[in-house]
Amino acid sequence: MDIKAYMIELGQSARAASRVIAAATTDQKNKALLAMAEALEASRAELMAANRKDLERGEQNGLDAALLDRLELNDARIDTMIEGLRQVAGLQDPVGEITDMAYRPSGIQIGKMRVPLGVIGIIYESRPNVTVEAASLCLKSGNATILRGGSEAIESNQAVAKCIRQGLAAVGLPDTAVQVVETTDRAAVGELITMPEFVDVIVPRGGKGLIERISRDAKVTVIKHLDGICHVYIDDDADLTKAINISVNAKTHRYGTCNTMETLLIAKSRAEEMLPELVSAYQSAGVELRGCEQTCDLSAAFIAATEEDWATEYLAPILSVKIVSAMSEAIAHINQYGSHHTDAIITENYTKSRQFLIEVDSSSVMVNASTRFADGFEYGLGAEIGISTDKIHARGPVGLEGLTSQKYVVLGDGHIRR
Amino acid sequence: MDIKAYMIELGQSARAASRVIAAATTDQKNKALLAMAEALEASRAELMAANRKDLERGEQNGLDAALLDRLELNDARIDTMIEGLRQVAGLQDPVGEITDMAYRPSGIQIGKMRVPLGVIGIIYESRPNVTVEAASLCLKSGNATILRGGSEAIESNQAVAKCIRQGLAAVGLPDTAVQVVETTDRAAVGELITMPEFVDVIVPRGGKGLIERISRDAKVTVIKHLDGICHVYIDDDADLTKAINISVNAKTHRYGTCNTMETLLIAKSRAEEMLPELVSAYQSAGVELRGCEQTCDLSAAFIAATEEDWATEYLAPILSVKIVSAMSEAIAHINQYGSHHTDAIITENYTKSRQFLIEVDSSSVMVNASTRFADGFEYGLGAEIGISTDKIHARGPVGLEGLTSQKYVVLGDGHIRR
Repeated sequence: MDIKAYMIELGQSARAASRVIAAATTDQKNKALLAMAEALEASRAELMAANRKDLERGEQNGLDAALLDRLELNDARIDTMIEGLRQVAGLQDPVGEITDMAYRPSGIQIGKMRVPLGVIGIIYESRPNVTVEAASLCLKSGNATILRGGSEAIESNQAVAKCIRQGLAAVGLPDTAVQVVETTDRAAVGELITMPEFVDVIVPRGGKGLIERISRDAKVTVIKHLDGICHVYIDDDADLTKAINISVNAKTHRYGTCNTMETLLIAKSRAEEMLPELVSAYQSAGVELRGCEQTCDLSAAFIAATEEDWATEYLAPILSVKIVSAMSEAIAHINQYGSHHTDAIITENYTKSRQFLIEVDSSSVMVNASTRFADGFEYGLGAEIGISTDKIHARGPVGLEGLTSQKYVVLGDGHIRR
Repeated sequence: MDIKAYMIELGQSARAASRVIAAATTDQKNKALLAMAEALEASRAELMAANRKDLERGEQNGLDAALLDRLELNDARIDTMIEGLRQVAGLQDPVGEITDMAYRPSGIQIGKMRVPLGVIGIIYESRPNVTVEAASLCLKSGNATILRGGSEAIESNQAVAKCIRQGLAAVGLPDTAVQVVETTDRAAVGELITMPEFVDVIVPRGGKGLIERISRDAKVTVIKHLDGICHVYIDDDADLTKAINISVNAKTHRYGTCNTMETLLIAKSRAEEMLPELVSAYQSAGVELRGCEQTCDLSAAFIAATEEDWATEYLAPILSVKIVSAMSEAIAHINQYGSHHTDAIITENYTKSRQFLIEVDSSSVMVNASTRFADGFEYGLGAEIGISTDKIHARGPVGLEGLTSQKYVVLGDGHIRR
């Protein structure tokens, strides 16, 4: 197989389909999403049979239990995929929205119309449900998509792709609007990220290694999410109950998510008072505690944190704790060691809350709320294709709007430039 | 000189300065801009002396008259630079604006805060006034800047840079917030566009060759403006007077600008009626006319257009004209041969005006207005750093807002995720 020729063919088809999808009505797109849901419903047996092949091959290849679990499609997971499609059908269509139409002194009226980006390439790892999630968000936002899933899920992804194509065809939309790469050859990724003539933006979903590799080699914009080293800072003027509740929730609500707190910063003036209760809560949740020198001096529950700890996304029941002498030290620590994802301050102080919001350079900055809220659903975006830790184009949770752009619309009545 | 080490030093200084500039108050930034204006005013003699060196070297190196003209700094041009700084000081500061603060069912309140991008790299050709324009827009939007002007303007740019540094220092802002690369070594550009750790976005200003080269090699997002192949389409339902006025204005108001019409599309049903008056207007303005076969059949004033004509940005008194059988043919032509810059329809038909606005994939789409309006000043942005023909991040004229991003702000009252 000539991978380059194959990817160019996908690219050309996607570019052509993107023009049709961009002009599709909301009703057409919604009906396609619902038809996909029906196709999944009707194909449960095929989906599970395809998935079984992936699972068997995965076992033979020695995939670990966690990966095999992520790979598995069962009835409950197919239900979730179907429900996801129906939810996206229910979201407001961002395409075509016209805003800010104002008159200028010349007499022209000018505003902006929201439009699709064009063709979006998605590169992801083992979970086959991403195929449906990504395809549905891209379709609803008027974009064509080229999806490249992990080789370990190739059979499952192709079975899902068949349902997606059925849904598109059922409403007369081109089935090339969503294409799933059929080869597991890694060269396909290399081609996909270097075809700016056919692909407008790449969204990688997966581990940090994958995303760094793609960002390094891509020739089109990458909406990327590297890691989530999130902080909570307990300020001198924190309310005790809020501080304890949020610090515990931000770490222990879920360990493997990117918006989980990895480092807790405590104002020196409150450390002695707060640490015992915090240590007891973390210990009963089974969280391993690593602390700065001052923290270790105050509590025997901590082992010494290393420089590396401050820059680590544990994604595990481990927490590093640092005592800081002032808010400025907390902000400097966050901006230096954090990943510009999500950081919170706990304080009752008006001026410090404003300063923290302004000076912390992260995609989400919070006052008296748990970092675990940083999520497309919680933010009201309906769904998210990822969380961008970049500043260009989209920052923070990326929903339908993040998959669009705006063009200028100018209305005149025969106006010419003087 | 070790170019790599030198550029890393500039990058580190810019990154550090960007934190200070991002938190600078509107008043500080405005005072710095006005102090720069004063420094330029007080340095006219030095500026012109430095410029004379560039002009003399340019003459020796055989630069053509047009390039030497662009390079020249005289009293009127220094006035314009000073006036530009005062105008930017008068613009509204986009940084820190908080919008859309809405409550979610969980009880958190969430919205967005506008924030600077960080460090912006500007690469431009001979005109020294770009140094001031770019520096002022980046400063006002809270960004640090690294400027790399053309080697033919090195003395002028360094003299301007000195005034900019004086302005920053006068209000206590770090003078590393605006740095002008001091070497003419081309390797400096290669370094600047491949330092994502220090530079967040690159804005190239210059010819298509420069911009294509930079886009190909850059490792950070490029806000790029390739070319302006703009169209006017005279629809079957066009008003005669509006059609003539706009078609003439869009071509003849100025020839060398990117928003000048390069191809006129005329509905077949109106060609015979419109062509004589158009031909007469264009001929009296000295515009060379190239037409499709049907156009040539209708008027002897045209020479035959080639396939290449449809894809050419003339930037000169040349116009290509094509007769189309329907609006769909006009839209297909624009989307295929245009540069996604600015395109207009002349029509009185409601449905066709809406369809044109939706289906033409350009950064500005107009009804009954001259393409010459596509400009940051005309659009009310106050000033522009360029016109983006891309869809990612910024599309169309890029003003202060295009040099910023938005972060999420979450306000809670002790809220935790359930």
